[in-house]
Amino acid sequence: MTLGFGVVGTGAIGREHINRISNKLSGGKIVAVTDVNQESAKQTVEQYGLDAVVYPDDKALIADPNVDVVLVTSWGPAHEATVVAAVEAGKYVFCEKPLATTAEGCMRIVQAEMKQGKKLVQVGFMRRYDTGYVALKQAIDKGEIGQPLMVRAVHRNPEVSEAYVTEMAVVDTLIHEIDVLHWLVNDDYKSVQVVFPRKTKYSHGKLQDPQLFTIETNSGIVMNVEVFVNCKYGYDIQCEVIGEDGVAYLPEFPSVVTRKDAKLSSNILMDWKYRFMDAYDIEIQDFMDSINKKGEPQGPTSWDGYIAAVTADACVKAQQTGQKEAITLEERPVFYSENAVLETV
Amino acid sequence: MTLGFGVVGTGAIGREHINRISNKLSGGKIVAVTDVNQESAKQTVEQYGLDAVVYPDDKALIADPNVDVVLVTSWGPAHEATVVAAVEAGKYVFCEKPLATTAEGCMRIVQAEMKQGKKLVQVGFMRRYDTGYVALKQAIDKGEIGQPLMVRAVHRNPEVSEAYVTEMAVVDTLIHEIDVLHWLVNDDYKSVQVVFPRKTKYSHGKLQDPQLFTIETNSGIVMNVEVFVNCKYGYDIQCEVIGEDGVAYLPEFPSVVTRKDAKLSSNILMDWKYRFMDAYDIEIQDFMDSINKKGEPQGPTSWDGYIAAVTADACVKAQQTGQKEAITLEERPVFYSENAVLETV
Amino acid sequence: MTLGFGVVGTGAIGREHINRISNKLSGGKIVAVTDVNQESAKQTVEQYGLDAVVYPDDKALIADPNVDVVLVTSWGPAHEATVVAAVEAGKYVFCEKPLATTAEGCMRIVQAEMKQGKKLVQVGFMRRYDTGYVALKQAIDKGEIGQPLMVRAVHRNPEVSEAYVTEMAVVDTLIHEIDVLHWLVNDDYKSVQVVFPRKTKYSHGKLQDPQLFTIETNSGIVMNVEVFVNCKYGYDIQCEVIGEDGVAYLPEFPSVVTRKDAKLSSNILMDWKYRFMDAYDIEIQDFMDSINKKGEPQGPTSWDGYIAAVTADACVKAQQTGQKEAITLEERPVFYSENAVLETV
Amino acid sequence: MTLGFGVVGTGAIGREHINRISNKLSGGKIVAVTDVNQESAKQTVEQYGLDAVVYPDDKALIADPNVDVVLVTSWGPAHEATVVAAVEAGKYVFCEKPLATTAEGCMRIVQAEMKQGKKLVQVGFMRRYDTGYVALKQAIDKGEIGQPLMVRAVHRNPEVSEAYVTEMAVVDTLIHEIDVLHWLVNDDYKSVQVVFPRKTKYSHGKLQDPQLFTIETNSGIVMNVEVFVNCKYGYDIQCEVIGEDGVAYLPEFPSVVTRKDAKLSSNILMDWKYRFMDAYDIEIQDFMDSINKKGEPQGPTSWDGYIAAVTADACVKAQQTGQKEAITLEERPVFYSENAVLETV
Ligand SMILES: [Mg+2]
Ligand SMILES: [Mg+2]
Ligand SMILES: [Mg+2]
Ligand SMILES: [Mg+2]
Repeated sequence: MTLGFGVVGTGAIGREHINRISNKLSGGKIVAVTDVNQESAKQTVEQYGLDAVVYPDDKALIADPNVDVVLVTSWGPAHEATVVAAVEAGKYVFCEKPLATTAEGCMRIVQAEMKQGKKLVQVGFMRRYDTGYVALKQAIDKGEIGQPLMVRAVHRNPEVSEAYVTEMAVVDTLIHEIDVLHWLVNDDYKSVQVVFPRKTKYSHGKLQDPQLFTIETNSGIVMNVEVFVNCKYGYDIQCEVIGEDGVAYLPEFPSVVTRKDAKLSSNILMDWKYRFMDAYDIEIQDFMDSINKKGEPQGPTSWDGYIAAVTADACVKAQQTGQKEAITLEERPVFYSENAVLETV
Repeated sequence: MTLGFGVVGTGAIGREHINRISNKLSGGKIVAVTDVNQESAKQTVEQYGLDAVVYPDDKALIADPNVDVVLVTSWGPAHEATVVAAVEAGKYVFCEKPLATTAEGCMRIVQAEMKQGKKLVQVGFMRRYDTGYVALKQAIDKGEIGQPLMVRAVHRNPEVSEAYVTEMAVVDTLIHEIDVLHWLVNDDYKSVQVVFPRKTKYSHGKLQDPQLFTIETNSGIVMNVEVFVNCKYGYDIQCEVIGEDGVAYLPEFPSVVTRKDAKLSSNILMDWKYRFMDAYDIEIQDFMDSINKKGEPQGPTSWDGYIAAVTADACVKAQQTGQKEAITLEERPVFYSENAVLETV
Repeated sequence: MTLGFGVVGTGAIGREHINRISNKLSGGKIVAVTDVNQESAKQTVEQYGLDAVVYPDDKALIADPNVDVVLVTSWGPAHEATVVAAVEAGKYVFCEKPLATTAEGCMRIVQAEMKQGKKLVQVGFMRRYDTGYVALKQAIDKGEIGQPLMVRAVHRNPEVSEAYVTEMAVVDTLIHEIDVLHWLVNDDYKSVQVVFPRKTKYSHGKLQDPQLFTIETNSGIVMNVEVFVNCKYGYDIQCEVIGEDGVAYLPEFPSVVTRKDAKLSSNILMDWKYRFMDAYDIEIQDFMDSINKKGEPQGPTSWDGYIAAVTADACVKAQQTGQKEAITLEERPVFYSENAVLETV
Repeated sequence: MTLGFGVVGTGAIGREHINRISNKLSGGKIVAVTDVNQESAKQTVEQYGLDAVVYPDDKALIADPNVDVVLVTSWGPAHEATVVAAVEAGKYVFCEKPLATTAEGCMRIVQAEMKQGKKLVQVGFMRRYDTGYVALKQAIDKGEIGQPLMVRAVHRNPEVSEAYVTEMAVVDTLIHEIDVLHWLVNDDYKSVQVVFPRKTKYSHGKLQDPQLFTIETNSGIVMNVEVFVNCKYGYDIQCEVIGEDGVAYLPEFPSVVTRKDAKLSSNILMDWKYRFMDAYDIEIQDFMDSINKKGEPQGPTSWDGYIAAVTADACVKAQQTGQKEAITLEERPVFYSENAVLETV
């Protein structure tokens, strides 16, 4: 069955997903689009030669019987209302992060979804589809390094604009580690503390950079996560899990190696777009395949969106207080008890 | 436009391409199949739920007006006749290697294609679509290592069956290096010499293993290519280009790195299927996209198939004589003068 | 001039230094030995064929006019008295760690040495002579990575005995990082906090393992140091300095790399003795050469011994309180103001 | 016992050995020196503050009863006469390469030595003392990669002067691989063939650069050895042994690794002097220790010098003919049957 997608939000990421579904993947078709900027919606239809209706708003789009899936790529504050409406209409939802801008908003989505009696929503945490993270999780799940005890993660960007302030280190950057690390070790977070090292001269007045987060899980795993967004040298995502029997590392992004000018070297990406490009494709293909084969998506759930929201709130508070802050989640509903496991090489 | 594919040959590789086109990629649809074993053709339609006609033979399939592309995945000796017939019918062709089993056969295809006045045929040399080789070629083409002087390539398999004899080191194994290396350095081959090192105890009576090929190009680049198909430890493809200003290496296939049991290690694939899995997808997607955007495929051409056939013949002769054997190509027609360059990261 | 060494303490490390000075290095000669176990002292003279007087105690040994250098390799609690006596006698001293078991004891040595008006004492922190650390320090000092902002260090052992308790993670293990890290970044420590991750099943009741130390310096560099002494997989010393312009890593200990059994791997040492074997040789040779060329040793000073003692005390306190503990040093005397820089490749 | 060294030739390498023996190692003393340039000999004594007699020629020096070892560091053509005279006088000899400039000359030394009834001579092939090569040989000898089948070696220099002509690729450069490779695999050479790839633009009229040597051993191991002395990027020594059960590599020379300017990189040496600096020290210390402990040196023998001479002659001939040339050795005398094995980590 070809899934009909209705796209809410035709900005950059919306268009990328439209292109992906139309021209690279199998199983989906864009049948409807909308945007608060109607001109943008119309241009998108034209640009990609879509056979799609342009709707005045998300409600109208959701109501279209050809729309099987609502793809939410509007700006963050609008996500919650669209997702709740789509879920209540029984539509599948693929929602870019954040699921909602507050923990309460996420919880409202969780409850709407549970009322429908089956999983409808997937949140766009694409790292879980990166072949490197998948291989790392497989190594852990197979017991190759034994019980995890510590994690060290690094999230570095070459630079950020003046608009990027201290809090964004959590909500824009750390948020990816927040999602992927608990999934990686199958555990829930308990507390977080932040230390600010000496500030790089390349940062500006409203941004503390770098930042070091120490996150503890319920079982006692300690995660040291560095966010450093003016590191200058590259876009660099590292992850290392130290277990009772060994250590496993996320693979480096592959690159030609050269011997040249007295250096043996490989390239580090400067542009984050290339790092998870394949993951975005696999993410959406898996979303479509799971719906077709199992009737529900198997990727990051509404509950994962809720976890991310609660954890991000605690991290921001920890930035402000300098103290260890609790990460307090509601009890996980049985509805969300199974953690989907992606199969790969 | 969705391209209609007619598949000639529904063995393992035929089915893999059918699955890829039907369930993973965008722009193609299987509309017809045939196989000398009609039962196999029918089962394939059923297995993949295809909306496709089963034809009694390749001629009937080619004649179907819904067939835009003939996908040739029959056994090697049958390729030439199918390809020539498809080309003469003005159909696009994607033909798995070999294009034909003789140089003369390849030349007949070349001539049939030239008569049509446009490129119709792509040969299934998927390595040109491997992100590693593409990145290596880009480094060379950008002049990062200067003029290439030497190449060292390694093609190792864990083991082969009793059916694999000395000559197959050329026609089944080296054939991939034969295609990819001249493309990599933009040069044509001139001669080849073979040396047989001490034979591994893991080989059998009819197989000299390993083998070392020294191939020279017109411009004087010397390529040392090792074929070692009972190396035991893994499926391992290496390529290193030594230039006037530096050396560039094909990236290792990415893997989780571990520290465990007194070793810092990464995995080497044991199964060749995983090594170029993505390349097969990209190859077919690019084939479809090029036809849709440019009206002709931009991958390995019939001429490349001809080069491979002539070179393989010389390599087999060199295995037998122990002498340096000439690799003598007809002059390259202007028709095939442009070497398509694949764009990537 | 050949330096006459008097050795106080003929246990394992004492004998190793005796062998090194007698049979591997240039410029020294063992002329006297003593040990609380006189039998051990005599056997040592015999074992190494030394032309050396066996003295009943350190005082008698120090008084021997042939003794230019007192090599202190007795047990820790005895160090202070021997060092003070040797310094007061105007003899050079090479003292294995700890210089003294208390900060006050170290300060008494500092004052005795200052009274002599020249540097006489070197403490056996051999890592500063490791070619890897030296190269790392050179990269930092040359500004290759800009101003250091963060350090990540790892100290792992395969396993420890039942006698090794939580506090020893500081005084036996972390002590080497304590010395080498402030030297590496040319800064002084300000505070330390300890977090205990989930305990490995391979540890015993009296040992919290692993442990994570967060040490801050006066200029705001944050150092995350992991001590994990039952990591099972190897003796592994890692150090990474993250600066404003890049990151630099301590080299891995060199090893043959193999492709074998589906793994690309290099060896990790299991036995710590091999890791700094060369550093011990270079350390003692440099000690002798510096005395001969400059009249005083240029390695780790009494003041460095004092820093180590104060810092270790704070780390132990932090283990107990779980809080951030201050590291409060006396003001550095001008006498110790120059940090010796070792030259190397 | 302290060995008295008489040094014949006080040029650069002679002085380096003098410094090493006098100031870095244990067990030797320079007691006599000579040089065809007497002024050089006298200056050397002064420069290093030696307590050594300056002799007018090698004969007088050899006759000095304080001379236990004759260290031959004169220019190549003079080696044979000095070595023969020293051996006939029953003195130990450490002779820098070449042992003699002809195979016949080497054979005369061999015979003189056999007449003395014990090994007296060590040739200065220092690579056998490099910790990397030693570890590689240990891996091979332990059977970690099974029976060796192929070797790939690379010897690259950044650049050479105009004086360096094609033949010197053998006698100055390849000569080190010639010595170390047969030792590594415990085999003798049988033939050699040379191929000249396209010449780098950085080479001059009298130098073919790079060059590829294919050397076969008696047991059928095939060695591909590249000499490339204007590679621009660094001094780079590589060695890889491909066996029936795996592949082992000479370790890279250790270096700080950095992440900087979009590159993950380590340094490659530009200056060859640093590459084997430690090996020179270990070589001379082992020479002295072996004489003291076993009464004879255990390093590369006169017979190894003879092998090098015969092999180099064949390689030069192969450069000229382009054909496969035989490497024909006399039968190995029982006297030289034991291959010393160096122990290390
Ligand atoms: Mg996303
Ligand atoms: Mg193919
Ligand atoms: Mg020490
Ligand atoms: Mg030498």
